[in-house]
Amino acid sequence: MTAGKRWVLARRPDGVPCTDDFRLEDTTLPGLQDGQALIRVDHISVDPGMRSRLSGDSYAPALDIGATIESAGVGHVIASRSQKLKEGALVWGGFGWQTHLITDGRGVQALDPALYTGKITPTSAIGLFGIPGLTAFFGLLEIGKPRAGNTVLVSSAAGTVGATAGQIAKMKGCTVVGITGSDAKCAYLKEIGFDASINHRTCGDLAAAFRAAAPKGYDIYFDNVGGEMLDAAIVNMRRHGRLVISGQIAEYNAREPRGIRHTLPFITQRLRMEGLVVYDHAVQFDEARRQMAEWVNEGKLTWREEIIEGIEKAPEAFIGLFRGDSFGRRLVRVA
Amino acid sequence: MTAGKRWVLARRPDGVPCTDDFRLEDTTLPGLQDGQALIRVDHISVDPGMRSRLSGDSYAPALDIGATIESAGVGHVIASRSQKLKEGALVWGGFGWQTHLITDGRGVQALDPALYTGKITPTSAIGLFGIPGLTAFFGLLEIGKPRAGNTVLVSSAAGTVGATAGQIAKMKGCTVVGITGSDAKCAYLKEIGFDASINHRTCGDLAAAFRAAAPKGYDIYFDNVGGEMLDAAIVNMRRHGRLVISGQIAEYNAREPRGIRHTLPFITQRLRMEGLVVYDHAVQFDEARRQMAEWVNEGKLTWREEIIEGIEKAPEAFIGLFRGDSFGRRLVRVA
Repeated sequence: MTAGKRWVLARRPDGVPCTDDFRLEDTTLPGLQDGQALIRVDHISVDPGMRSRLSGDSYAPALDIGATIESAGVGHVIASRSQKLKEGALVWGGFGWQTHLITDGRGVQALDPALYTGKITPTSAIGLFGIPGLTAFFGLLEIGKPRAGNTVLVSSAAGTVGATAGQIAKMKGCTVVGITGSDAKCAYLKEIGFDASINHRTCGDLAAAFRAAAPKGYDIYFDNVGGEMLDAAIVNMRRHGRLVISGQIAEYNAREPRGIRHTLPFITQRLRMEGLVVYDHAVQFDEARRQMAEWVNEGKLTWREEIIEGIEKAPEAFIGLFRGDSFGRRLVRVA
Repeated sequence: MTAGKRWVLARRPDGVPCTDDFRLEDTTLPGLQDGQALIRVDHISVDPGMRSRLSGDSYAPALDIGATIESAGVGHVIASRSQKLKEGALVWGGFGWQTHLITDGRGVQALDPALYTGKITPTSAIGLFGIPGLTAFFGLLEIGKPRAGNTVLVSSAAGTVGATAGQIAKMKGCTVVGITGSDAKCAYLKEIGFDASINHRTCGDLAAAFRAAAPKGYDIYFDNVGGEMLDAAIVNMRRHGRLVISGQIAEYNAREPRGIRHTLPFITQRLRMEGLVVYDHAVQFDEARRQMAEWVNEGKLTWREEIIEGIEKAPEAFIGLFRGDSFGRRLVRVA
């Protein structure tokens, strides 16, 4: 018997989530059966994309009321009756917002000790080497198709997805402009090699600010935001420009979808807009991780983490994402 | 000296054009100089896409006030001092709304007598074998990439672009649903092989009607309309669906761009939306025409023309396009 805690969905959020939409429960985990392992969760993630699961939409099935909030996590196997997961192993998976879980091993993977050494910490398994970094990698390379000399615009550029996409674009010989929400984040973008940055809270008209940063326009827009920002990018695209739809945080809490106003430039400028779900590239994940690890060890790729202490803070940490509070990959330390 | 007539832009339209935006002028053409030819225009086209040239926007430079309205045309060389264009030759080009013109040959092409025989009339040079048919050909095949078993939705399906795209999709083994604006046009779509048709004026909620016609959704949407119709298609697309942005008639007269509300399905359904300007494929035009001629002669590809009598009617014929008055390729007989 193991005592733990977990956050469950108390009610469906209406618009931006609030803390009352979540409830912290005490849990008691039974003893292990054959084939099972007990995981102590060390860190969990908070992700804007998880928002749609809280209310459900035509695409994402809704999480049940009372169900554990879903998220990525890293942890340790602290007891095992499983062949696959040995006691002491460092593991990651879709653990959810909880301190402990019993698993039969499905969806749980041991971290490769050869990869997670030196600069590459276990928490990066749910950051740069997890869904955010992989989304940047495949979104930029497979949909954006950067070529040397291209100009690339990235939104939410100080987040792990945006910062990774921008740094990879730099390695491919592109000029990279990042959009973010504070002067500190703009300074960070310069530090990691972005050519220019735009603070969307102070720049005034977005389309004009995008134009000022790259008067000849953009070949690629890597979008994590949607709505007005996407619209302002569309009118600044060059011929045959590619729009990578990686995230749409402006849409997640909208009671009515907002969308974009400009579709004519798709014809006049021959634009292509394409969305991705990174799991479609799952068979290439290990290859991508090896490539990114090489870049990290060569000092060409960096990332930033922001650790919030205590599972009690998970809802606040999540809600803050929609205010742009986070700076880098936001994780919650559980144990 | 040759007496003729031409339509010029009298003032810039505000919203939907009206007849007062155009003015019919008498013209007197001088004698020919060396290298020139005199063309008598037989038929001219009226095209919704031309609307943006009347007011100009960030992409299409505006036509000057007083300039001849631009359009495609077919005609005959009636006098020549040109090596390239012989007297009597049947020619086509961007002649504009006028009865006669003098040309140095640039942008004017003699029609290949081997192609324009039998069912393939000279007017088809500015219809099926002109920009509309070529737009359907390259838009469907290069962007839509139809595969046998795909389900394809086509808007403005009774027009030359839509009807051609739909018939080519059928040849590629697809199930094809056409959207059009009258029961007579719906009947025509059935006649030319569409599997189903939707009358958007009587079907009620567009998204529901699209869903009813293909409950499993669409792999390709070939869009000539934009706005609400595009939005209703987006929410009915299957995974990895392709949206071909061929025309956006709903946007051409809008004082403010309308656009679309739904961008989240680009992620959840991995959609790709891409626009085209058919001139980008100019080097392949002759090859495409030969292929389409073969289909016509095999009875697999047909088209419909609607001839309005008299150049005086050109503005009305054009304005009617935005009410959905036309049925097939609308041309104006000049001589």
